[in-house]
Amino acid sequence: MRKSRLKRAVVLLSGGMDSATALYWAKRRGYGCLCLLFDYGQRHKRELRYAEHLAKTAGCPYHIIRFRLPWSGKSSLTDPKQALPRRALGRIGRSGIPSTYVPGRNSLFLAYALSCADAWKAEAVVIGANALDFSGYPDCRPQYYRAFRKVAAAGTRLGAEGKRIRILTPLLHDTKARIVARGISLRVPFEKTWSCYQGRRHPCGFCDACRLRKKGFREAGIPDPLLESSR
Amino acid sequence: MRKSRLKRAVVLLSGGMDSATALYWAKRRGYGCLCLLFDYGQRHKRELRYAEHLAKTAGCPYHIIRFRLPWSGKSSLTDPKQALPRRALGRIGRSGIPSTYVPGRNSLFLAYALSCADAWKAEAVVIGANALDFSGYPDCRPQYYRAFRKVAAAGTRLGAEGKRIRILTPLLHDTKARIVARGISLRVPFEKTWSCYQGRRHPCGFCDACRLRKKGFREAGIPDPLLESSR
Repeated sequence: MRKSRLKRAVVLLSGGMDSATALYWAKRRGYGCLCLLFDYGQRHKRELRYAEHLAKTAGCPYHIIRFRLPWSGKSSLTDPKQALPRRALGRIGRSGIPSTYVPGRNSLFLAYALSCADAWKAEAVVIGANALDFSGYPDCRPQYYRAFRKVAAAGTRLGAEGKRIRILTPLLHDTKARIVARGISLRVPFEKTWSCYQGRRHPCGFCDACRLRKKGFREAGIPDPLLESSR
Repeated sequence: MRKSRLKRAVVLLSGGMDSATALYWAKRRGYGCLCLLFDYGQRHKRELRYAEHLAKTAGCPYHIIRFRLPWSGKSSLTDPKQALPRRALGRIGRSGIPSTYVPGRNSLFLAYALSCADAWKAEAVVIGANALDFSGYPDCRPQYYRAFRKVAAAGTRLGAEGKRIRILTPLLHDTKARIVARGISLRVPFEKTWSCYQGRRHPCGFCDACRLRKKGFREAGIPDPLLESSR
């Protein structure tokens, strides 16, 4: 009997703790993971270096996709001249979407992943999006992923052939503390993940990404190994 | 009374006759059009030069977005070493999807357009996709656009604020002859459009794109001005 081919997943890897946990989750589920990293003109390249290091540590091949958007001044994550918000976390409809929102970013990332999955005949796309302890970005909400699943079914060769490219969001409904706990059990090297929107030597501790990360480790009752290692 | 702001549309422009007709249709409908052109490693840059020329002729600003895909060998449109098919037009489920299919291409184009529309507060994205006289690409089918409309509503700042980014496909159900007729009435400069998959001086006449174009002009009873001008 022939051994069945390893099932493949295209994993979106940002260098942060969520996508790292999603990668190790996919590995544990038996997927052969191909990581996609993006250089889209973000404020700093530190997260990209962390993502490369993570992919290597996980033993997964990766590709860096480079592109620029024609409206880079419209987000404080792509325009280094803008100040980053130092504020409590916002939510859609209460305090609006923060300036760190990168218009359509997850649609771009997922479109690249879908393209690769269709070309490489991968069964799944994995994204570490989270809709609970998040910054209020519209493209992190469950209804967005439900819609994108239909795009994957209708707009690909695999979909047209009756196969499915699954869009997997294993962390969508987790608290940040739960992501920390799951990551620990999956042996995610959290000291190799970078969340801070600033690209300085140490995390700033004040941006939304730092606040969420701190909240997660605090509520999980575990010290953040990134902070431990950088002391 | 203040005059209302010109409504804006992001128009995907390939340099072919369909996207040119879609652009002139959007202009006629009163949209201020911002064109997106793509350099994604396609076999030749001739279509891109035609698209630039078209945008200028139409008096519309344009941006060229450049990216490369990590699987370029998987499509004969991105791998110049592969022969282009010289054959009758295929359909999904009968003769399969041709080798010119670029996996996930329209999802990438639409994701870029969505990103720009969200950043620039444009009401619409316009794409000249056609599901009747087409090469059988899955991302040209009506169900695909229905799915993408939900992505536009769920995954953007404008959508989250209750505004809508419309995904307009004015040519989706037209025959190629009908597109020619509509283009003529819209004064589309068809002599400035390029359809052939080859990037030679004259259209090859045999690839799917040439066959479809020839069929359109023949059935519309109009000589193709591109062929007239290149004689």
